[in-house]
Amino acid sequence: MKILNVDLGDRSYPIYIGIGLLKDKKIITSHIKTKTICIVSNTTVSKLYLENLKNLLDDYQVVEAIIADGEEFKNYDSLNHIYTTLLENQCNRDTTILALGGGVVGDIAGYAAASFLRGIPFIQIPTTLLAQVDSSVGGKTGINHLLGKNMVGAFYQPQSVVIDLNVLNTLDKRQIAAGLAEVIKYGLIWDKGFFEYLEQNIDNLKQLEFEHLEHVIYRSCEIKAKVVSEDEKESGIRAILNLGHTFGHAIENCLGYGHWLHGEAVGCGMVLAAKMSLAQGWLNESEFDQVKNLISRANLPIEKPDIPYEDFIGAMRLDKKNKDKEIYLVLQQGIGKAIVTNNYPSSELDNIIKN
Amino acid sequence: MKILNVDLGDRSYPIYIGIGLLKDKKIITSHIKTKTICIVSNTTVSKLYLENLKNLLDDYQVVEAIIADGEEFKNYDSLNHIYTTLLENQCNRDTTILALGGGVVGDIAGYAAASFLRGIPFIQIPTTLLAQVDSSVGGKTGINHLLGKNMVGAFYQPQSVVIDLNVLNTLDKRQIAAGLAEVIKYGLIWDKGFFEYLEQNIDNLKQLEFEHLEHVIYRSCEIKAKVVSEDEKESGIRAILNLGHTFGHAIENCLGYGHWLHGEAVGCGMVLAAKMSLAQGWLNESEFDQVKNLISRANLPIEKPDIPYEDFIGAMRLDKKNKDKEIYLVLQQGIGKAIVTNNYPSSELDNIIKN
Repeated sequence: MKILNVDLGDRSYPIYIGIGLLKDKKIITSHIKTKTICIVSNTTVSKLYLENLKNLLDDYQVVEAIIADGEEFKNYDSLNHIYTTLLENQCNRDTTILALGGGVVGDIAGYAAASFLRGIPFIQIPTTLLAQVDSSVGGKTGINHLLGKNMVGAFYQPQSVVIDLNVLNTLDKRQIAAGLAEVIKYGLIWDKGFFEYLEQNIDNLKQLEFEHLEHVIYRSCEIKAKVVSEDEKESGIRAILNLGHTFGHAIENCLGYGHWLHGEAVGCGMVLAAKMSLAQGWLNESEFDQVKNLISRANLPIEKPDIPYEDFIGAMRLDKKNKDKEIYLVLQQGIGKAIVTNNYPSSELDNIIKN
Repeated sequence: MKILNVDLGDRSYPIYIGIGLLKDKKIITSHIKTKTICIVSNTTVSKLYLENLKNLLDDYQVVEAIIADGEEFKNYDSLNHIYTTLLENQCNRDTTILALGGGVVGDIAGYAAASFLRGIPFIQIPTTLLAQVDSSVGGKTGINHLLGKNMVGAFYQPQSVVIDLNVLNTLDKRQIAAGLAEVIKYGLIWDKGFFEYLEQNIDNLKQLEFEHLEHVIYRSCEIKAKVVSEDEKESGIRAILNLGHTFGHAIENCLGYGHWLHGEAVGCGMVLAAKMSLAQGWLNESEFDQVKNLISRANLPIEKPDIPYEDFIGAMRLDKKNKDKEIYLVLQQGIGKAIVTNNYPSSELDNIIKN
């Protein structure tokens, strides 16, 4: 088992990464200080792990809030189901929320914890590769709004994160690929050596070799923790974590949530961002090919889906990074470095969206 | 004009208290660092002050979100109207929310600011006496849930609070009385001298003499700021600010929001808390009479409305202060001091609720 401490002053917490942790009572409960636990999960994940988890937690009063599975249910109705469950069971601040699921469950459950009674503790048990490398660090919680993704939420840190590699065995190939998109992102924005490691080991990762997975999950969380600890509330450098997301969110928004997986949209978005970087001369042709090839080898889409220009640019205008009605993009400066910028000809962005 | 600085480290902010501040462009805009402003108000208050305020803010892009007037609209629908307004107008983090209204507007607008894009700045312009002495300090924002009051929200501090005494001229007597309930509370929990000042000046206050009002608003905010700065997240002493609220929330909850004003329920709740304190020997008969008489002279109800026991106690069980299924009460220890306790015979609580 590896332990990574996310250093955020009095909001610091550990991430445990290992095999079989979902059956490790000590690891799961060591950060629970309350008498009551509310497990939040979805209809798919709960079938796999809920009973086992409840058996481990027999010293606690346990209630459960099960939401529908899918990004399209990352909304107020699901959130309200959690509030209602908590209230119907007379849960108060002596309650810890335990998020058992992928990114959607983690984001909604985390936001429920942030907002119920103005804040109760929570613990993340991410069950997808994407959630393990993305939602585990950063404290971003929230829900979608009809008019935009992740528009409502809070920065709120968990008490601990428990990552069990075993859960990856139940994921299908699309979900593994979606997780690899975020892993590749960390190489692109921060660590050329890690990117090269991924180029060498992408097939091992796709085949779920735990030794390699443990390393890339640890390193991904470590890079994200480094960025987040420098800028917890996203006023500056943290925005580089959004590489591929400005395009990706627009894709998800225009196609309707649930058609493409978030990681697939991000994968394609990173190719579009690389195209913009190539047009600026910030990536050369060979580097661009490296980016596109690794994303493709990870089984991610590299071609923009067919979306009308006005819809696409309209969705991009809603991005949280924007200022003064200008669209800010995260672009590469070589492999291993990224910047947030509006310093590009808008005609080039138009070209990329129209093609 | 008086200025009170609420000291919360990097979340500190000033409260401006004076006559005519709603027409003072410099005071209102001095803490606005964004290009866009979203004014949140209700249908009643906006008729009185919105046009004037918009005229003052002609250097900014201004959008407005007007919600229905009343505690029964302190819900997700009203909150979502603000989100939708912000999104339809492509507002991003370069937007300040300006809350123009009473406690309901302040709480919803503050929570919209806390949660939209995970947090944008906001400014409070409270237009009721209750909001001026209560919502101005403490950073409590939120909405009601069908199953309980203020169950969803965030601790979130404004950039500044602007209190214009002139707005009190438009309030009816019930609203002034409701505000005086919270003012009396500060005397009861913290400052016997202030309580005695109120005994001497309650008629002047009811007649809206600005000199006395400015003093009691300042002193009320000052006491609340002192308590809050010691315990921002309500893990300890801050709960004494809940004097009268455990009973009061149950009254509001059982009668249905909007029948009694919040301050009226709190006024009656403080009498019930004083009865409990009397039964414990923590108030003597004469002190109990002082409490009851001042609340009565403030035009507040001192008799519990007719509510079935099971409903009342059930509502009290939902209180956020409770731990281990026990009902915690804020009780007096003499006039000017309060404690949070579950150390009372439950039969005495039953007696008071049943009578």
